Amino acid sequence: MRVGVLTGGGDCPGLNAVIRAVVRKGIKDYGYEFVGFRDGWRGPLEGDTMPLDRAAVSGILPRGGTILGSSRTNLMKIDGGVERVKQNMNEQGIDALVAIGGEDTLGVATQLTEQGVNVVGVPKTIDNDLNATDYTFGFDTAVGIATDAIDRLHTTAESHHRALVVEVMGRHAGWIALHSGMAAGANVILIPERPFDIGEVVEHVESRFRTNYAPILVVAEGAHPEEGQMELSAGEKDAFGHVRLGGIGQRLSEEIESRTGKEARSVVLGHVQRGGTPSAFDRVLATRLGVNAIEAVHDQEYGKMVALQGTDIKRVDLSAATDKLKTVPAERFEEAEVFFG
Amino acid sequence: MRVGVLTGGGDCPGLNAVIRAVVRKGIKDYGYEFVGFRDGWRGPLEGDTMPLDRAAVSGILPRGGTILGSSRTNLMKIDGGVERVKQNMNEQGIDALVAIGGEDTLGVATQLTEQGVNVVGVPKTIDNDLNATDYTFGFDTAVGIATDAIDRLHTTAESHHRALVVEVMGRHAGWIALHSGMAAGANVILIPERPFDIGEVVEHVESRFRTNYAPILVVAEGAHPEEGQMELSAGEKDAFGHVRLGGIGQRLSEEIESRTGKEARSVVLGHVQRGGTPSAFDRVLATRLGVNAIEAVHDQEYGKMVALQGTDIKRVDLSAATDKLKTVPAERFEEAEVFFG
Amino acid sequence: MRVGVLTGGGDCPGLNAVIRAVVRKGIKDYGYEFVGFRDGWRGPLEGDTMPLDRAAVSGILPRGGTILGSSRTNLMKIDGGVERVKQNMNEQGIDALVAIGGEDTLGVATQLTEQGVNVVGVPKTIDNDLNATDYTFGFDTAVGIATDAIDRLHTTAESHHRALVVEVMGRHAGWIALHSGMAAGANVILIPERPFDIGEVVEHVESRFRTNYAPILVVAEGAHPEEGQMELSAGEKDAFGHVRLGGIGQRLSEEIESRTGKEARSVVLGHVQRGGTPSAFDRVLATRLGVNAIEAVHDQEYGKMVALQGTDIKRVDLSAATDKLKTVPAERFEEAEVFFG
Amino acid sequence: MRVGVLTGGGDCPGLNAVIRAVVRKGIKDYGYEFVGFRDGWRGPLEGDTMPLDRAAVSGILPRGGTILGSSRTNLMKIDGGVERVKQNMNEQGIDALVAIGGEDTLGVATQLTEQGVNVVGVPKTIDNDLNATDYTFGFDTAVGIATDAIDRLHTTAESHHRALVVEVMGRHAGWIALHSGMAAGANVILIPERPFDIGEVVEHVESRFRTNYAPILVVAEGAHPEEGQMELSAGEKDAFGHVRLGGIGQRLSEEIESRTGKEARSVVLGHVQRGGTPSAFDRVLATRLGVNAIEAVHDQEYGKMVALQGTDIKRVDLSAATDKLKTVPAERFEEAEVFFG
Repeated sequence: MRVGVLTGGGDCPGLNAVIRAVVRKGIKDYGYEFVGFRDGWRGPLEGDTMPLDRAAVSGILPRGGTILGSSRTNLMKIDGGVERVKQNMNEQGIDALVAIGGEDTLGVATQLTEQGVNVVGVPKTIDNDLNATDYTFGFDTAVGIATDAIDRLHTTAESHHRALVVEVMGRHAGWIALHSGMAAGANVILIPERPFDIGEVVEHVESRFRTNYAPILVVAEGAHPEEGQMELSAGEKDAFGHVRLGGIGQRLSEEIESRTGKEARSVVLGHVQRGGTPSAFDRVLATRLGVNAIEAVHDQEYGKMVALQGTDIKRVDLSAATDKLKTVPAERFEEAEVFFG
Repeated sequence: MRVGVLTGGGDCPGLNAVIRAVVRKGIKDYGYEFVGFRDGWRGPLEGDTMPLDRAAVSGILPRGGTILGSSRTNLMKIDGGVERVKQNMNEQGIDALVAIGGEDTLGVATQLTEQGVNVVGVPKTIDNDLNATDYTFGFDTAVGIATDAIDRLHTTAESHHRALVVEVMGRHAGWIALHSGMAAGANVILIPERPFDIGEVVEHVESRFRTNYAPILVVAEGAHPEEGQMELSAGEKDAFGHVRLGGIGQRLSEEIESRTGKEARSVVLGHVQRGGTPSAFDRVLATRLGVNAIEAVHDQEYGKMVALQGTDIKRVDLSAATDKLKTVPAERFEEAEVFFG
Repeated sequence: MRVGVLTGGGDCPGLNAVIRAVVRKGIKDYGYEFVGFRDGWRGPLEGDTMPLDRAAVSGILPRGGTILGSSRTNLMKIDGGVERVKQNMNEQGIDALVAIGGEDTLGVATQLTEQGVNVVGVPKTIDNDLNATDYTFGFDTAVGIATDAIDRLHTTAESHHRALVVEVMGRHAGWIALHSGMAAGANVILIPERPFDIGEVVEHVESRFRTNYAPILVVAEGAHPEEGQMELSAGEKDAFGHVRLGGIGQRLSEEIESRTGKEARSVVLGHVQRGGTPSAFDRVLATRLGVNAIEAVHDQEYGKMVALQGTDIKRVDLSAATDKLKTVPAERFEEAEVFFG
Repeated sequence: MRVGVLTGGGDCPGLNAVIRAVVRKGIKDYGYEFVGFRDGWRGPLEGDTMPLDRAAVSGILPRGGTILGSSRTNLMKIDGGVERVKQNMNEQGIDALVAIGGEDTLGVATQLTEQGVNVVGVPKTIDNDLNATDYTFGFDTAVGIATDAIDRLHTTAESHHRALVVEVMGRHAGWIALHSGMAAGANVILIPERPFDIGEVVEHVESRFRTNYAPILVVAEGAHPEEGQMELSAGEKDAFGHVRLGGIGQRLSEEIESRTGKEARSVVLGHVQRGGTPSAFDRVLATRLGVNAIEAVHDQEYGKMVALQGTDIKRVDLSAATDKLKTVPAERFEEAEVFFG
């Protein structure tokens, strides 16, 4: 049996741990051979491969990024893309494919399955917004990095009587903001799921200043005010009409300065959140997902994705990955809200 | 309403985060007053209290240890202990008690409940061996510290062609060894649940040396060989007949040296694993447990313990805490075993 | 003897370690009393003080920021400012002042000395650009944080075949960029001392892409192109005509994208670099400076500043602090340059 | 020109950074070829080599250990050893040798120089006890790791009213104990340079307990009591009559328990201190030493060692490395002593 492996979408700590687990388990227990496809779907599309044996995965467990490279190549937008992938897989003698990726990558995987390709999926999203799984690897690492940064900013805020706005990842879901904000004791957390009232935010900030502590605000990149408030100029948006990275953090900090008369600064954590060595939690989760993905291949349970539920790894339909976004429910947000102010 | 709070047993990163959450939630949402009992059950036994208001819990979220102090005072072994606790609680006007602790502390809490005391429990064990909850806070921090240490030891092992034996916590359950060993890519993991065959261990070590890589062994402090192997001398045991801390690591390293003729060293991580700032994961878990404990008090659901199940915090019977040890199941160990050698 | 202590300017890991050392040494060896002035020169100007005894400095060694608060109040720009300080010091019965701060704070200290006030200075600049001392505390911590971040970005850069521009602190001197760039293996380092040729930078980036590795560029916030290149628009400058924070990183990344046709991203580390717990190096340095500052007070060597020279702490004239900026010499930059490309 | 490179003695974070700097500088600026000798002096003795080009040193900057391996092979104790090294170097066409190591390695290098071999030395000792240089790489990393550990132990000590004894590296010099003890706020620091009075130590511990804080003691592995006190049994010593690793920490903790009646625990940091990624400080220092070593080769200044003096890298006689141990001077110890108790 020859198994192809690819990683698609934005990079995420733990990808290499998955690859290593897939390959070591497959070789040791089932004697499989592996082929690495480079740069997400570009690999099988163009037949661009690399060797993937025990030596290739040696020492990669603690390393961030992906030895296979990644891209956002969207197979479905390419004429004849699926056919070319099937042909390239045939030519390489590939019997099954392990696709590690997020909504887009697994969406393609779902469609390939419908076309008779043998695919098993491994879910990946640093934003933790995939519905079928309790957690995705990379999320814990990102939350840890953001928490460290906010811990550091506390001392600056307090020494200078200054508000600090920390913008973290999360375009559609506020999980990183919620967890890092709770972990680091933020005074305000703003998430995309709940448009904020700028007046209320400023009030929180002022009440904090009155008690002589400097406020820390954690804001997800996709958070936004209620309609009609704080209109953004064209220059603050990107090509899709979204606020550009750093836009909301910067804008909020200006708004706070002008409304409170106190100093405010914004910090945009950016790509640092998705790089580097995975946390122990993510390494264990990624390894378990990899082991279980190859078990699914062995059982020929194609069209499935492996997912964490409680402390177990389960198999769910690949389509579950793209079903519905997992956003922060109201009760989780309220649990955190008690600590504001 | 006046609520007492105490922390018992060994210290654990996240205790302060629980205390802070209990107090802030109780004051903000329900206007409760809080009283801190010092040093576990010694506090209510002797009526030793400290003030526990918003100021007392300010800034403690990221701090390890417990501002309330802890002890292993076992109330049940003290004549008239329960009566004295009830009396002291009455004198202080305490309506309910939040007890944060492990098997022993919650065992006492269970018995107090039976005697009509209003108690809500919060589970705590760095070893993660409590059955009713998916994870306990402190465990993730301990695994992270152990993983960091093993990451560091890899380079030493490889530069010196030397076996390294790392002894981690875990007297009855091998969770820390399993997770840190998987996370850091150990070649052998030894846990109390599965007595090891010393010959097999040495074989693994030798096969690793043959491929020119230095082996790393992670061993839980409670791991032990199959009966009849590697008999320990009296000096290697403590007063209870257990191997003393560091004993099994040291002994294994000597055994490896004498059987393989290669150098081996042991490192005992010890108390470093249970101190210092909690990981973001543990801070969030501890905070959620604290919030939910005070909700249980508010609902007058006494005799309950709050527990993590999947991504939810549930209430379970206090007695569930002491029911059964949660040990590493065979299939979890086999999942890791594929990476050995 | 009563000694006042103040901290001025931007915050910096290690300030609390200095304060603690000053106070503990002064009490233990000489029986001094201490008074804390709040928020830099604002404290003595307005007579705003706080108690500063052993209890006040307990536990602050590992904490970032400053318990005394800080500000950029410039005494020299305030009519009668010096007189008010002298009067407030008299009223408080202050015999000597330990002033911890950078160029501005120590500049004021120098002038106060000339007016007969007993001042000893402790140099502080996170940018390490003070001439009279080998290193200033806070710098090592900042370099460590920047290096961690760049380490993380490497994996992102390589997985996505993307250039990454990391903007670090350093308005007038490139020390943080030089050290973190060397430590993290950057391919290009841009510092204020050496205006860059954008064409040359792009060439480096392209040569790196050709060898299939993603380039990392570290750029000090004050770095700038040679005259006539990459003109900045008014919106990219602040009120002083300086490029605003994040401006040069953002601009460079756009320039690279447009000239190479490859993706580029910028990350601005910002205030995270100056917050949080000091590195061990900085804690030792800060502690030694504090101990030696109080020795200088005891010896009545006023108008002096304590400084690190080799492994010794020496006393130099306060005026030396403001004499000349310590910039990166050409030979240090060339030492690093060998690693570019 | 062909240059051999070897690393000898105990491993040390930064070795790979030196190797990378030597190789990249030598290739880029002078077009040299490099040959790696494996496992210290064993490599040239047995002619055991590995390729050492740009690819070999790619990505090793942040990695602990040494890609060349290390050993304690003592050339001088091997009959005809020097002759065999000279012969093997000739056969390999090696014109010069860069030897990276401590007292033993550089001692051999000194003798080879006298026999006409072209050697340049790079000093390495994690203990920082080499006289000719202000700091050696690895030391800062070790101090950082020890400081992190002691920071963590503080919370355990305080929660349990327990004394904690932390044994750190340092057989002959107490630098690691001094710096990590100062950085982490230890209450007692014991170093080999100053035999301690056990009664005085216990008194310190008790005074700390009386003020209700738990004492932390940092003890170098080579620290020992004044003559006639605390005699060690044969089992606590190694083959050389030295106290075995962990011996003094364990013994002290027992002594404290028996003399104060309070709980005490010992933690032995062991090999964790010398593994893993180097700190930014050590990476910069190691890189600069490597660059300057190859400059010395280029200038044909053989028999020299590169050394840090202030902020400069200088060339000193190789013999200076083995001249005299750099121990902690009395005034440095007294500077720290003010914080005890």
